[in-house]
Amino acid sequence: MIEIFSDRATIRHALAFERALSRATAAEGLIAMETAEAISAASSAHEIDPTELAEEATLAGTLAIPLVKRLRASLSGDAAEALHRGATSQDIADTVLMRQCVAGTQLLLGDARRVCTALYEVAERHAGTPAIGRTLLQDAAPVGFGLRLSQAAAGIDSAARRLHAEVAANAKIQLGGAAGTRAGLDGKGAAIAARMADDLGLAAGAPWHARREGVVGIAAAIGILIGALGKFARDVSLLAQNAVGEAREPAIAGRGGSSAMAHKRNPAGCQVALSAATRAPGLVAAMLGGLPQEEERGLGGWQAEAPALADLFLLAAGCASAMATVAEGLEIDKAAVARNLKAAGVGTDIGESVAIVAEILTHHRD
Amino acid sequence: MIEIFSDRATIRHALAFERALSRATAAEGLIAMETAEAISAASSAHEIDPTELAEEATLAGTLAIPLVKRLRASLSGDAAEALHRGATSQDIADTVLMRQCVAGTQLLLGDARRVCTALYEVAERHAGTPAIGRTLLQDAAPVGFGLRLSQAAAGIDSAARRLHAEVAANAKIQLGGAAGTRAGLDGKGAAIAARMADDLGLAAGAPWHARREGVVGIAAAIGILIGALGKFARDVSLLAQNAVGEAREPAIAGRGGSSAMAHKRNPAGCQVALSAATRAPGLVAAMLGGLPQEEERGLGGWQAEAPALADLFLLAAGCASAMATVAEGLEIDKAAVARNLKAAGVGTDIGESVAIVAEILTHHRD
Amino acid sequence: MIEIFSDRATIRHALAFERALSRATAAEGLIAMETAEAISAASSAHEIDPTELAEEATLAGTLAIPLVKRLRASLSGDAAEALHRGATSQDIADTVLMRQCVAGTQLLLGDARRVCTALYEVAERHAGTPAIGRTLLQDAAPVGFGLRLSQAAAGIDSAARRLHAEVAANAKIQLGGAAGTRAGLDGKGAAIAARMADDLGLAAGAPWHARREGVVGIAAAIGILIGALGKFARDVSLLAQNAVGEAREPAIAGRGGSSAMAHKRNPAGCQVALSAATRAPGLVAAMLGGLPQEEERGLGGWQAEAPALADLFLLAAGCASAMATVAEGLEIDKAAVARNLKAAGVGTDIGESVAIVAEILTHHRD
Amino acid sequence: MIEIFSDRATIRHALAFERALSRATAAEGLIAMETAEAISAASSAHEIDPTELAEEATLAGTLAIPLVKRLRASLSGDAAEALHRGATSQDIADTVLMRQCVAGTQLLLGDARRVCTALYEVAERHAGTPAIGRTLLQDAAPVGFGLRLSQAAAGIDSAARRLHAEVAANAKIQLGGAAGTRAGLDGKGAAIAARMADDLGLAAGAPWHARREGVVGIAAAIGILIGALGKFARDVSLLAQNAVGEAREPAIAGRGGSSAMAHKRNPAGCQVALSAATRAPGLVAAMLGGLPQEEERGLGGWQAEAPALADLFLLAAGCASAMATVAEGLEIDKAAVARNLKAAGVGTDIGESVAIVAEILTHHRD
Repeated sequence: MIEIFSDRATIRHALAFERALSRATAAEGLIAMETAEAISAASSAHEIDPTELAEEATLAGTLAIPLVKRLRASLSGDAAEALHRGATSQDIADTVLMRQCVAGTQLLLGDARRVCTALYEVAERHAGTPAIGRTLLQDAAPVGFGLRLSQAAAGIDSAARRLHAEVAANAKIQLGGAAGTRAGLDGKGAAIAARMADDLGLAAGAPWHARREGVVGIAAAIGILIGALGKFARDVSLLAQNAVGEAREPAIAGRGGSSAMAHKRNPAGCQVALSAATRAPGLVAAMLGGLPQEEERGLGGWQAEAPALADLFLLAAGCASAMATVAEGLEIDKAAVARNLKAAGVGTDIGESVAIVAEILTHHRD
Repeated sequence: MIEIFSDRATIRHALAFERALSRATAAEGLIAMETAEAISAASSAHEIDPTELAEEATLAGTLAIPLVKRLRASLSGDAAEALHRGATSQDIADTVLMRQCVAGTQLLLGDARRVCTALYEVAERHAGTPAIGRTLLQDAAPVGFGLRLSQAAAGIDSAARRLHAEVAANAKIQLGGAAGTRAGLDGKGAAIAARMADDLGLAAGAPWHARREGVVGIAAAIGILIGALGKFARDVSLLAQNAVGEAREPAIAGRGGSSAMAHKRNPAGCQVALSAATRAPGLVAAMLGGLPQEEERGLGGWQAEAPALADLFLLAAGCASAMATVAEGLEIDKAAVARNLKAAGVGTDIGESVAIVAEILTHHRD
Repeated sequence: MIEIFSDRATIRHALAFERALSRATAAEGLIAMETAEAISAASSAHEIDPTELAEEATLAGTLAIPLVKRLRASLSGDAAEALHRGATSQDIADTVLMRQCVAGTQLLLGDARRVCTALYEVAERHAGTPAIGRTLLQDAAPVGFGLRLSQAAAGIDSAARRLHAEVAANAKIQLGGAAGTRAGLDGKGAAIAARMADDLGLAAGAPWHARREGVVGIAAAIGILIGALGKFARDVSLLAQNAVGEAREPAIAGRGGSSAMAHKRNPAGCQVALSAATRAPGLVAAMLGGLPQEEERGLGGWQAEAPALADLFLLAAGCASAMATVAEGLEIDKAAVARNLKAAGVGTDIGESVAIVAEILTHHRD
Repeated sequence: MIEIFSDRATIRHALAFERALSRATAAEGLIAMETAEAISAASSAHEIDPTELAEEATLAGTLAIPLVKRLRASLSGDAAEALHRGATSQDIADTVLMRQCVAGTQLLLGDARRVCTALYEVAERHAGTPAIGRTLLQDAAPVGFGLRLSQAAAGIDSAARRLHAEVAANAKIQLGGAAGTRAGLDGKGAAIAARMADDLGLAAGAPWHARREGVVGIAAAIGILIGALGKFARDVSLLAQNAVGEAREPAIAGRGGSSAMAHKRNPAGCQVALSAATRAPGLVAAMLGGLPQEEERGLGGWQAEAPALADLFLLAAGCASAMATVAEGLEIDKAAVARNLKAAGVGTDIGESVAIVAEILTHHRD
């Protein structure tokens, strides 16, 4: 995920934007095919130092200006002139961000799937094992031990599905030009945008420079996914308390140690997830706070989105990967489960736990 | 919306829960039909003073305990015993909240529709009227005046659709009992829950006491809708500046006045929407922050949801209603539009504005 | 606290504003003393129905307009004309809010003091009692049992001091008039404001209509206080887990029960505090989000403050009062403390626990 | 600021912690002076590759473990054994963070001072220049043009003073060891901590592992400062609108351009500040959300703080530096100021504007 949102990847996607734009304008007859090929070749070959470009971008207030300037300097004649035709900085910035959302989501969904697959398997195995259920942090009534795990997994699964749907619907090409009118494209803007969307693996649609509910929908979905992973982490960390001891993270060399206490095994995966769940709500709030953007393209609102969204993806990735490891290696102490239930003295009637686990698995497992 | 989330409505929904529960348990043969009828009759006839109950609920930490106690006191024999069978306080609380979400969403979607219908009509009429487009709060390039309005409407429309989908998927019956196992229902829990869902106009499904991603999805969708309405409000307030003067809110007697300056016409509708858009992100963050809930039913997390969600619905309702009035009465000064464009000195090429408005209307207008 | 932020109290403070304004303008010779007395008398006698006024305020977009209108209708001649001289709606709104902050803070600090006093006493008593210390939710090393409590109290105490300092510095009179220039007060604005501040128990100073860092400072201080109370609640709820059992909330009739499980004693006070701690961060974020207000008096930003600030005070009050009850009645099970320490097998070296408790008490206890 | 929060600086501070710890333990007679010198020498000479260490830290869940391990490997005998005595990972992490807060605050306050100094100068010069004041984005009543600028500056100044006070009070040494008891330091923990605080330029005090209200107070103060800078940015961006034209950012080569419109001068400094003001509230919310930490040292809460706090400092630095440049080069168009006032037709009575500016300058300017 660090790679997906790296400066290097950002530059690569920005060059891909210019390449796709040149091809699409050529296909629609606005520029010659050779001109497009020259641009494509230049943008494929172009090597840009991310650190240098970042400095220029800071000064310019946008990455696009120095990038296009450098690329244009490597071209001549028609190609230099045709480059970036009809596009504005935000067209590049948004398209790049959407490509990163698509790539980042693929990665996330893979790890979320790992968590769920592992948990469904354990949940099924322990669906009928009586355990004490706890509410408001107090012993309450018996449950099947697998029920809690299936619930945690179902939450993660639903959150992952929401994210998938938001990205499929809202990861759109951005091509509107200076004021979002697709001026300068000979009335072929819609067709060019559609070709670019196809080329770049994004959804097509009208420009959306100041209409950000789609991006925020993606951000909210990631925030919810992080929270759902946090629920699983909360449960594992509570079950792993020494006085409870019903489950704990797998032992991994070099992980979860303490610089002061060699004997401890810290829930290091849960720590990653709970820390992410502490940070995510504020990042989603930042995205929401930027929604009332000004006129054709706003001041400050959309510029706040890319770093917040990147942070969300990075947190989610760390969190999903850590909890996948936890889920796949979860250690369960059946004796402790039985001991705690007995201590509660509330019998062993686990109601419809087994049926509920089955219902959840039917509904969620592919 | 105030009525929908009032204490009175909350009590009414809670009584409906007990009524539906008694009917469903009777239909599944757990209790006699006459017992269910006695409970139904009592819960229909029961008059509870909201203020008194609120005090008892504060002490008990939940509304359900005093409510069930009072209702039980009005029953006798089998009915008193059968009341609330298999249910826990959170079953009532969540079911009530979901019924309020359904009702609140209907109201909201109606007002959002009013905004969009009005804006699409104006947008279509002014799609080809050249106006200056502004980016980063600076004059940029010409746009069709209607394009901006269609964009604002499209954002609101997409946000409204997201809310509709979230509520349809996640406004579910809650019936799990003390530890979410549907214990005490003779193995008929799933069937009883399905009957109750049907009776109460909610979706069916497994208990979700500590799996809150659905509720948070609803909250996020409202937050996004408020932000989309805020975008429209931001634009109107900027266009209504005296130095710009292209559009303004309709004049309404007693509205938007100033206690110090009789001549002013304040954008009072936009104020409502922008104030809501300032508050909403933090409310969504609160919902997200509660996600990592403990075990079978958490401590503090879900108890934070109902007031935050009610606030979101109330803000959204005020905001949608205010902006519907603005949209329906929006005053446009075509002379000012033309004057500002001319002053910008950037010509009148509005690119594909007309086509984009048409594309947006095709995509969004039913 | 509900009373302090009630509509009725808001109206009372608003009438006090007009009364203080009339007295101060009379004292500075702008109006006759009898005119001021007429206004004072009218505003003292005036009975306004909060519900009716709320409706008018919703339409007007501000409470001040209908309130001044009603009050003026009860006056005649010079008094009717002199009423509200030099003031604008926001002058009333902000002054009222600051008076509510002062009153609310007094209430809060009293309850915070109760928590700290009780905790310091218990902490001192148990400073040297060896107990297992836990880090990252794992048994770690021995601590004095009182150390944890003294730390929780110290956090609450520091947070209470910050709140006190913020309110003392920032609860200021607001008197600037329409554009914050103190126009219409014959150059006596500063003197009039100073008199009013004195009369109303607020700090004096220049108008601050669009300079909101003081109000937000108060809000942040409350947010931090709620979080510090939440830390104490988190600890009690963890110690009260059945498998741990070292401490628990006092038993209070009708409190912390369960509608499904009669045997349970839920940590109902901790629930209040943890729920508040889940909601507070977003409310502070809303206040911060409103800071970049427009020009002389903004649109939407400051209008979002009063409800968010009221919510913060209400949450803090519920939270501080609940945790005061918990602190004052905290039940400690010394046998469980000893048993858990022994089970951890890490000896009994509690380091400088006693000295640290003493240091904290010296630093914090008056 | 990027340098202050870089991995390299973090490592440097961590090594300084070990150096100061060894010196202080030697001074208190726990280890030999030569042992301390050996540790000091090793930690001064030690070269650690930040990228390698970051990978190890990710695995370990903390930076301290691999860092201490590497440092210990370069030592032998008593020094290897004495290294890190009495300390835990969080001692290092918190102390490093506090040193970064001190350094970051110095930088921030310098830039905030630049903004205020420049604005006070312009405000004084234009205190009596009549201009139209605007409220709720509508022309309202005349103000002295300098009044608005002095208000913006006063807000920034107050916010900077709050930050200064929070850092002075709360940037404390952390030295508590595994469970916060200062075990293993022969009862000399308080003295050792005091020496270290002195050595490292921090305040002294009891351990505060799970008492985070001080760190959050710093974070909130930065959030408020960013918002106050955002208020100034909001005003400049509104005044710079083409239809208003009263003020604008200085022209800087390569800054504020547009990739599509060569003629535009975008408010690039304001964009930085408004984008920061959109992101900051959520970061503060994340810090607040982590407050209810568990027991002696929590799981997830404090681990979320360092990145959020670093982001706040980075945003504030970008924002303060950008707005310092704007303030120092602010271009004012007096003709536009006069023209807009005349158009409003509300006369030229600017009330006590001049006196208020003088009052603000007296109160705020050193």
